[in-house]
Amino acid sequence: MINRKRLINHIEELSQIGRTENGGINRFSFTDEEKKANKLVEDYMKEAGLSVHYDAIGNLIGSVEGTEDLPAILLGSHIDTVPDGGKYDGPVGVLSAIEVMHTLKDQGIKPKHPVKVISFRDEEGTRFGFGMIGSRAVAGTLTTEDLQREDQNGITIEQAMKDDGLEIDHLDTAQLENIKAYLEIHIEQGKVLEFNHTGVGNVTGIAGPLWLKFHLEGLAEHAGATPMDQRHDALTAASHIITEIEKIANQFQDAVATVGKVAVKPNGVNVIPGEVEFTADIRSIDESERNSIEQKIKDFAQNIANDRNVSLQISELQRVEPVLCDEDIQKAIKESIHELEENVVSLPSGAGHDAMQFKNNFPVGMIFVRSVNGISHNPKEYSLDEDIEQAANVLYKTLNRL
Amino acid sequence: MINRKRLINHIEELSQIGRTENGGINRFSFTDEEKKANKLVEDYMKEAGLSVHYDAIGNLIGSVEGTEDLPAILLGSHIDTVPDGGKYDGPVGVLSAIEVMHTLKDQGIKPKHPVKVISFRDEEGTRFGFGMIGSRAVAGTLTTEDLQREDQNGITIEQAMKDDGLEIDHLDTAQLENIKAYLEIHIEQGKVLEFNHTGVGNVTGIAGPLWLKFHLEGLAEHAGATPMDQRHDALTAASHIITEIEKIANQFQDAVATVGKVAVKPNGVNVIPGEVEFTADIRSIDESERNSIEQKIKDFAQNIANDRNVSLQISELQRVEPVLCDEDIQKAIKESIHELEENVVSLPSGAGHDAMQFKNNFPVGMIFVRSVNGISHNPKEYSLDEDIEQAANVLYKTLNRL
Repeated sequence: MINRKRLINHIEELSQIGRTENGGINRFSFTDEEKKANKLVEDYMKEAGLSVHYDAIGNLIGSVEGTEDLPAILLGSHIDTVPDGGKYDGPVGVLSAIEVMHTLKDQGIKPKHPVKVISFRDEEGTRFGFGMIGSRAVAGTLTTEDLQREDQNGITIEQAMKDDGLEIDHLDTAQLENIKAYLEIHIEQGKVLEFNHTGVGNVTGIAGPLWLKFHLEGLAEHAGATPMDQRHDALTAASHIITEIEKIANQFQDAVATVGKVAVKPNGVNVIPGEVEFTADIRSIDESERNSIEQKIKDFAQNIANDRNVSLQISELQRVEPVLCDEDIQKAIKESIHELEENVVSLPSGAGHDAMQFKNNFPVGMIFVRSVNGISHNPKEYSLDEDIEQAANVLYKTLNRL
Repeated sequence: MINRKRLINHIEELSQIGRTENGGINRFSFTDEEKKANKLVEDYMKEAGLSVHYDAIGNLIGSVEGTEDLPAILLGSHIDTVPDGGKYDGPVGVLSAIEVMHTLKDQGIKPKHPVKVISFRDEEGTRFGFGMIGSRAVAGTLTTEDLQREDQNGITIEQAMKDDGLEIDHLDTAQLENIKAYLEIHIEQGKVLEFNHTGVGNVTGIAGPLWLKFHLEGLAEHAGATPMDQRHDALTAASHIITEIEKIANQFQDAVATVGKVAVKPNGVNVIPGEVEFTADIRSIDESERNSIEQKIKDFAQNIANDRNVSLQISELQRVEPVLCDEDIQKAIKESIHELEENVVSLPSGAGHDAMQFKNNFPVGMIFVRSVNGISHNPKEYSLDEDIEQAANVLYKTLNRL
């Protein structure tokens, strides 16, 4: 079993780097804070008996040889943050993986498979509005075009890489092949585990978001002088669609759909809304299910628009493919949870993670740690020490199973 | 019958005062433009044989004696505008009333009742955000407290009055008593007459607006990580209420209810809305009907909030009493319309007018002129010359009937 005290100490130590006055953490990619944090994580890796290097995109990798000539097992997560982020989102995954390797070393156990612990560069996308840069490079899907994205000061990813001593010509060397499995611990960022009174969970898949934008155009007229039957009210049309989106999502077990953003024009108390724009965020780990939800929503919206003589345009803001976690890895995780005498709870991940990038590369599995009150991306983000310990033990046992 | 050419010329001449570069008109209370416009209207009044004076609030009044000792008949409207307003909203009423008196003079007819033509000061409320200042004074409801309202430069109504040579001590002298009826022509500012293919209409009443503000508070959580059945989504709750508001208003013949303004927080694509605020503008000429609509909406909203575990607060932004037009005056107007071989269409006024101020003072009646495309408060505001002529003739005949 892993050393809880050491693991929690590492989490605390790392959380001091980039600390903000609000009690949150700012650690963005290619900054001094990130460099300082990487240096500390390097030290932890070395203490755990790993040999350390940075790949072509700047992912930090600690490796140990296997006793047999087998594909490697990849463990990891990220240590960058959102603005004023918490100390668990990312670090728990990287530091638990290191802790598992440290425990194996303490116990004198040499793994049959080679093992690599990776700290991915820029998962959150805070600086360049892109995200998962490191894991894209490992998947071999990061293009030189992607590297032209700029931060708010007009600095491209490419320039930031150069300033960091990285060569974009070597980008393809970051791609990892011959990987048996990728395993990641991450905080849940939701309340499903809390709801189920358990500290750890097995992730069934990562629900890629589909973002749609709805634009409704009716007629802005005087709220007093226009009888109800002569109106083309874009907002009442939108409200019908919004209530139906909720209703449709409710019909599917693991799907969610959310209208988060709304803009009404002209937005005056006594003017019938002439224009409404709103977004829908639709997620499921099952792409065909998500497609079916999308179609039902679009059909309903078009009918409402036709009935009410308002025009409707639907555009796509992003469409990320969902990823299912590997059945064999899930089985190993569930057995490990069971062995630790915890309830075995399986749940989809609504949030995105580096693991999604590996859909076409190698099998993935994820272990979730309970988030108190489901709070994340916030200085109040919190997970219990014992839950983190249990998750690291699940990873330890799962690694042994694999 | 009235002189169309003279009336249209007066409308055109007056519209030159305060003309903006957008083709609209800016004529706000206690400004040079207003003074200039009043001067012109004074001239028209004198030409029509009226003796002219300004009352204590600065309403311009043109009077003619009656042949008998009877209560006076009051005719009028206003000549101030909203920013970039049109040339018909207000002036059509004042200038038609003067034209009717001019026609009587041309015909050598002396009215049995005294007649007063009034141009009310500041109906629109553009400058002080208050409005109907002149008609409030005539009703005797304008208080010295009201006069403390400031324009955007911090000048109070009281100060503006002083600068204009008016004494607030004499405010109560503006109140008019012993009035048999108040009659006003105004453009419809809606599309009901257009819809009915007719140029003039009889107004049944003025639907006072009730403005409510709804504040819903749920829980802002991650759109991906929060299952549908664990949400407290303030927006889906709001959407149910908004669709129901429309449905309730549809159940009443002459009522309207509009949600015009919406604010969603935090308003992020991937965040469940934690807070939603929206307004409802509810109007009916029948106060008990409006009360019943209000109650139905409030009950429904509270049920939705309870069902969905979101908190609800409803506050009142304004509650203006609706006014019914006098049955006898309506009868006279309808007979006059019929006599002119027009279809008799009766409709409520959704917009507010000076006539509402006289609810507890004397009977009122209104004649509407068709607005092309229902456009008003806009340089594109437009009414046909022949429609204005017909309305003035209806006023002429109605005056004779009374």
